[in-house]
Amino acid sequence: MAKEITPRSEDYSQWYLDIVRKARMADNSPVRGCMVIRPHGFAIWEKMRDALDAMFKETGHVNAYFPLFIPKSFLSKEAAHVEGFAKECAVVTHYRLKNDPEGNGVIVDPEAKLEEELIVRPTSETIIWHTYKDWIQSYRDLPILINQWANVVRWEMRTRPFLRTTEFLWQEGHTAHAGAEEAMEETRRILDIYATFAEEFMAMPVIKGIKTPNERFAGADETFCIEALMQDGKALQAGTSHFLGQNFAKAFEVLFLNKDNQQEHVWATSWGVSTRLVGGLIMTHSDDDGLVLPPKLAPIQVVIVPIPKPAPALTEVAEKIAAQLRAKGISVKIDNDEQNRPGFKFAEYEMIGVPVRLGLGQRDLDAGQVEVARRDTKEKNSVPLDGVAEYVANLLDEIQANLFNRAKAHRDEHITKVDTWAELEDVLESKTGFAYAHWDGTTETELEIKERTKATIRCIPLDWEEEPGTCILTGKPSARRVLFARAY
Amino acid sequence: MAKEITPRSEDYSQWYLDIVRKARMADNSPVRGCMVIRPHGFAIWEKMRDALDAMFKETGHVNAYFPLFIPKSFLSKEAAHVEGFAKECAVVTHYRLKNDPEGNGVIVDPEAKLEEELIVRPTSETIIWHTYKDWIQSYRDLPILINQWANVVRWEMRTRPFLRTTEFLWQEGHTAHAGAEEAMEETRRILDIYATFAEEFMAMPVIKGIKTPNERFAGADETFCIEALMQDGKALQAGTSHFLGQNFAKAFEVLFLNKDNQQEHVWATSWGVSTRLVGGLIMTHSDDDGLVLPPKLAPIQVVIVPIPKPAPALTEVAEKIAAQLRAKGISVKIDNDEQNRPGFKFAEYEMIGVPVRLGLGQRDLDAGQVEVARRDTKEKNSVPLDGVAEYVANLLDEIQANLFNRAKAHRDEHITKVDTWAELEDVLESKTGFAYAHWDGTTETELEIKERTKATIRCIPLDWEEEPGTCILTGKPSARRVLFARAY
Repeated sequence: MAKEITPRSEDYSQWYLDIVRKARMADNSPVRGCMVIRPHGFAIWEKMRDALDAMFKETGHVNAYFPLFIPKSFLSKEAAHVEGFAKECAVVTHYRLKNDPEGNGVIVDPEAKLEEELIVRPTSETIIWHTYKDWIQSYRDLPILINQWANVVRWEMRTRPFLRTTEFLWQEGHTAHAGAEEAMEETRRILDIYATFAEEFMAMPVIKGIKTPNERFAGADETFCIEALMQDGKALQAGTSHFLGQNFAKAFEVLFLNKDNQQEHVWATSWGVSTRLVGGLIMTHSDDDGLVLPPKLAPIQVVIVPIPKPAPALTEVAEKIAAQLRAKGISVKIDNDEQNRPGFKFAEYEMIGVPVRLGLGQRDLDAGQVEVARRDTKEKNSVPLDGVAEYVANLLDEIQANLFNRAKAHRDEHITKVDTWAELEDVLESKTGFAYAHWDGTTETELEIKERTKATIRCIPLDWEEEPGTCILTGKPSARRVLFARAY
Repeated sequence: MAKEITPRSEDYSQWYLDIVRKARMADNSPVRGCMVIRPHGFAIWEKMRDALDAMFKETGHVNAYFPLFIPKSFLSKEAAHVEGFAKECAVVTHYRLKNDPEGNGVIVDPEAKLEEELIVRPTSETIIWHTYKDWIQSYRDLPILINQWANVVRWEMRTRPFLRTTEFLWQEGHTAHAGAEEAMEETRRILDIYATFAEEFMAMPVIKGIKTPNERFAGADETFCIEALMQDGKALQAGTSHFLGQNFAKAFEVLFLNKDNQQEHVWATSWGVSTRLVGGLIMTHSDDDGLVLPPKLAPIQVVIVPIPKPAPALTEVAEKIAAQLRAKGISVKIDNDEQNRPGFKFAEYEMIGVPVRLGLGQRDLDAGQVEVARRDTKEKNSVPLDGVAEYVANLLDEIQANLFNRAKAHRDEHITKVDTWAELEDVLESKTGFAYAHWDGTTETELEIKERTKATIRCIPLDWEEEPGTCILTGKPSARRVLFARAY
């Protein structure tokens, strides 16, 4: 199978598509830009969702569900928001089909036209703030800390499985607060949750930062983000957390009586991560033999393969090891398929990214041993049967750490401080990765640099040392450097 | 609060709406027929989903995700299916909005018309079987046992929160098999899972049965269902499992090479339950004071209320009890709110259906006691502090059992064997519930009875004793009785 994967060195973009297909993560669908998420891809998303959901709930958030459809007029209520989202929406105009009188299947019934068109939600701020108006009267009703797991639709012209699809799955948090400071704390709390999740579960190092005004969410006062670096040196925005100020409260007239008995507009945040993370996971760790998964997100963490084929004596030992591993909370599959040979199975489990493989042969067993192969480095070791579960549990931790360290080393090597235009171009064209450069702070310069290099300002990193300098393009004064990169 | 609930005896329909609103289960939305599922309602749905998901996975099913949109032409491919679903669909015709040149917000961009309209899925058989064509070549690719948790849209004219909404949440299983017998086994396996879930988690007794051809799912060869009885004597279809035969395989040309090396159409099932179950849960157990929840689906199982108000000594004991309960896997809330008095809090927790309430007062504590109130019967007991966690754990089991037994007694009392038309009318008009009557097996008679009585054949019960007789309307021979009822 692996032979059918295009090597990364040859064509990274095709390699990605090959992995998605051959590791059975997703398929194209007959609907433009929409994908079918296959069971293996979905199981990874479920693990992401469960981990994030637990983190949200630990910090006091609850889930709810708002309608898929948004009345068209809602989109116009927040001026910046409509500019950002109205251009790429699926629009429902009718509510009925009928049999074609000419016999060609079904047609739209022209008599079933909606009075007001409905938009399939591209994001839910508008309908949620419309609802919050009914829920909020006083500071006693605040904060509202709601999240929803949902599908959204943005009509994208150029799509790529997981990374950019017309329909995608995500979570969107929408919180309401009695003060600016509290809302900003929430925005930062979620940013920290996203960063922790990315690094501890996905083993994907991220930089926390602030977006420039030009890259802000449509309707936000400030957008925070986590940015990751893929193997090909392109950046990936992996999650965003927005401080919305009072913009949506003003657009939807949501006021509350504060402790001083004054009417005040409510303060808001919103934040989201999506199935895009699955694409980021693939491009952070995988290799030319297939998917590489961090153990914490692997649907199957350990596979046991009898060698050369299933036999009662081998199955007995396999079941015993599996029971020991499961008692430690580790997911295990025993492959008792009789059709395929071990070599085929090995390639298959490498393809789908099972972190640890145990090969169980009679000769090994007679010697009191079992062969343990790790997916990340491809190393194999003979390990004493006695204590193998303990060994594997430790190995899974080691793989999780190794993947993060490997990705972090790659990322750190690809952050380059540049001070001249030539250096900037060299980084973007040859070395790839982030160029850490001075910028004069204007949107005009930002757009000019994008026009010339295809690089965008990924973020203004938080908590990095600030040093003044001069803009790499205009030579004007700059208070601090920002991160440029080409991005997905 | 409870005063604002219309009593069931006065207006059952209004009582239901009051419960939904006052227990903060759901709100109306600005989109016709769509509801906002509020955190308390959604937490109950999450518990249902998690329990069902575990049961599906234990029986070998995996989750996946298919597109929200279905190309219009797909609906026409299965003749019966299009008749059943094409009439009530949300139709996407455009993919862009633009600023109104006349300045009135945004309008649909006429230049962004789709070549082929997209239907927001009312159910996903068509797009899934289109996809299965690519996945299935031989019997070695079978069975496929896939489920998806998703939102679907059916344009309903008369809607009711949870029971019938334009958009609803559900799971839809879609399985593919190498033989009719195996597909039928799957259909029945799922029916059993649904019945077990309804009775063991929802404490809602159900009758397993077969739908008449007239009530079958559009595109099925046989539809199995579970039917429940609500407090007002109306039936509720709570879940369906369909044996689809080879209908969708034929419509989408999905063939496999069987073990005899012959090309054969694939056999299919589909099955689903939805947020409608939340409505069924409400109408099975709740009373005039609010929601009554079976402990297994209650987001908060136990609430501890300090009396008359929070105090350090009370909080210390409350924390100790909560820790003991949590160690048993029981969810606990300690209400340390200082604004409201105990009486208000008691009414509030009765309203949202917390199964057990502990009242913690200093005088009780001095006597080594705590007051335990159960929501289902409203009984209160003073219980020794020592061993209270054990007592509460047992009480939760007892409440779960009591709710089921109470609902079953009510249901059983409302199954009436009727042999004359007058008896049938009397049951439907006065006694309410199921009328168990003979029917000649024709759709014509079924529709005539529906026309005259508003009752439908809910199902032909499985595994009930069969006895021949004569049709209650036509007097023609009948092989066995069926269950008639008015239904939601």
